[in-house]
Amino acid sequence: MSEILYDVIIIGAGPAGLTSGIYASRHNYKTLVLEGNKVGGKALDATWIENYPGFPEGINGPDLMAKMEEQAKKFGAEIKLGTVYGLSKLDEVFMASTRSGEVYQGRSLIIATGISRKSLNVKGENEFKGMGVSYCGVCDGPFFEGKNVAVIGAGHEAIHDVELLSKTSKKVYAIPSGKGYSEAYPELKHLENDPKVEFIYGANITEVCGTDFVESIKLGGAGLKEVKVDGVFFILEHVSTSAILVDFGVEMDAGGCVLVDRDQMTSVSGVFAAGDCSCKGFQVVTATGMGASAALNAMRYVKQLK
Amino acid sequence: MSEILYDVIIIGAGPAGLTSGIYASRHNYKTLVLEGNKVGGKALDATWIENYPGFPEGINGPDLMAKMEEQAKKFGAEIKLGTVYGLSKLDEVFMASTRSGEVYQGRSLIIATGISRKSLNVKGENEFKGMGVSYCGVCDGPFFEGKNVAVIGAGHEAIHDVELLSKTSKKVYAIPSGKGYSEAYPELKHLENDPKVEFIYGANITEVCGTDFVESIKLGGAGLKEVKVDGVFFILEHVSTSAILVDFGVEMDAGGCVLVDRDQMTSVSGVFAAGDCSCKGFQVVTATGMGASAALNAMRYVKQLK
Repeated sequence: MSEILYDVIIIGAGPAGLTSGIYASRHNYKTLVLEGNKVGGKALDATWIENYPGFPEGINGPDLMAKMEEQAKKFGAEIKLGTVYGLSKLDEVFMASTRSGEVYQGRSLIIATGISRKSLNVKGENEFKGMGVSYCGVCDGPFFEGKNVAVIGAGHEAIHDVELLSKTSKKVYAIPSGKGYSEAYPELKHLENDPKVEFIYGANITEVCGTDFVESIKLGGAGLKEVKVDGVFFILEHVSTSAILVDFGVEMDAGGCVLVDRDQMTSVSGVFAAGDCSCKGFQVVTATGMGASAALNAMRYVKQLK
Repeated sequence: MSEILYDVIIIGAGPAGLTSGIYASRHNYKTLVLEGNKVGGKALDATWIENYPGFPEGINGPDLMAKMEEQAKKFGAEIKLGTVYGLSKLDEVFMASTRSGEVYQGRSLIIATGISRKSLNVKGENEFKGMGVSYCGVCDGPFFEGKNVAVIGAGHEAIHDVELLSKTSKKVYAIPSGKGYSEAYPELKHLENDPKVEFIYGANITEVCGTDFVESIKLGGAGLKEVKVDGVFFILEHVSTSAILVDFGVEMDAGGCVLVDRDQMTSVSGVFAAGDCSCKGFQVVTATGMGASAALNAMRYVKQLK
C-alpha cells in the first residue's frame, strides 16, 4: 500500500476529473487522478469541439484534453494509470485498489468515471466514426445543418436528440431499433406531428454505408431496405459500469447514473461525483463545471475532517 | 415593441449568459443576449484566470470574455445593450422591457444577471484592485501562497474563504468587520484552533495601504491599528438586485439567490437561471456549465411549446 495520504483522489481523467484536479491541486490539496484507460476520456473521440466556451475557432478533443492535463499537472496533481476495482473506508480514510495491485489512500473521493453506452457493433460504424457517425446530438448536430440524419436508440436521450436535430437538419429518421419508444416521453406527441421527423418502427440498423462520408444506412426487419442519410447518431442506453460504486453504497438511479446533491456529494459522505457519470449535460463544459464544484466541496469536506 | 419573437432571451452577458448564447444559437434557436452594463460581466475584472480549464498558461478576464462573445456571435446570437427593468408574460410569450423603452419578446428566458456584493468603499480599495485587493478566494488565493492575507466579511462565503486561504497562505486574518460570524457555521470550530488563522473581532477596516502592491491594512475600533498583509479579500454579503425577478414571481432564498432545479429552471415555468445569480460556484467554469445546461433545457421547453 502506498504510504501517501492524498487529500483528494479523483477516479477518471476526463474533463470533469481533470478540472477537479486543477482546482484541488491549485489550492495545495494533495491530489491524485487515477485513469483506467486514456487521460482525456471520451472527449478524446471528439474530432472537433465548437461549443466549449473560450475557443471561438473550435478545437479538437485531444488538443483540449492535453491542455487540461497540462494545467492539472502544472498545479501539482499527480496523474496515474490504474483501473480501480474496489473501494473501502477505514477510520475516515478511503482506499482505492487498482487491478495492478496498488492501494491508494485518500481523505475524499471524486467519482468522474464517465458513462458507457450499449453498442450495436453495426458494420461500418467504426469506419465512419467522425465521418458521419456520431454519439452526441448536442455536440455534432449543427454539423449536419440542412442534411438528413438518423437517430438510433429508444431511450429518453435518443428522443431528446431527435427533437434537437429536427431544428437544424432537413429530415430526421427516428429509429428506435428493436423496441419502440416509451409513450411516457412528453416529446413524442409533438414530434409525431413534425413533418421533418419520420419514425421507422420495427426496423434494426444493419449497416452504415458510404465512401468518404456516410451516405446511407441499411435496415433489416422493416419494409425499407436503405435510407439515404448524411449522418447517423447512435444514442443507445447506458451500460452500468459501476458495480464498484454499488458495492460501496453509492446510490444510483435505475439508469445507472450516480445521484448527487447540490454540492456534487453522493449518498456516501466524503464521496463526490462529477461529469457524465451523473448523467447531466454530457458536454465538456457541463462536466468541467461539475468537476470544479466537486473539488471545492471535497476540499471543504477534507478541511473539516482535520 | 420589437416584432421579432426570440426563442431564448438571455439577460446578462457574463460567462453564463454568453455560454447560453453559444448553445442556443448554435442549434438555430433565435437568441438574444441583453446586457445592462458591459459584455463579459464580472469576469472582466479578473486580471489573470489560472483555473479555467483549457488555458494552462492562464488568460486574462477580458481576453477570455472576448473569445466567448465572438463564439456566441459566430453562431448567430444577437447581443444588445439594454437594462431590463420589467418582465411580463402573455399567451406563452415573455416580454422583457428595457429602461430605454425597448420591449423584447421571447418564448423562454434565461436569467444570468450575476450578483452584486456590498461595498465598504474603503480608502485604497479601488487603487489596489488586482494588486492585492481581491473579491474571490477561490480565484486568487493561490497567488498569495506563503503570504499574509486578510478576509473582510462575516458571511458564510467569507468563512469559506478563510478556510480555503488557510491552506495556501502563511497567515489569514479573519475580520468580520462589524458584527461577528454566525455560530452556526460549522467551519468556525476547527478554524478557531488553526494556528494559521487569527480572528480580529470588533474592528473595521478603514484603509488599504501600499506602494505598488498592498502592504498593510488599517483598522479602526480594535486595539490593533495596522496589520501587515500582502492581500486583502473583500467577501461581503450579496446585495439583492433582483426586485424585477421577485415581482415576476421567481423564487429566491433569503440571500437573494435564485432557486433552480436540476434543469436550471426557476419556479416560473420557461424561466431558467445560470451563473452567480444562483449563488453556486462563483467561478467562470461553473457559470459556463450552468449556462449550457440552462440553454439546453430552455431549448427543450421551447420545442415542446410549439
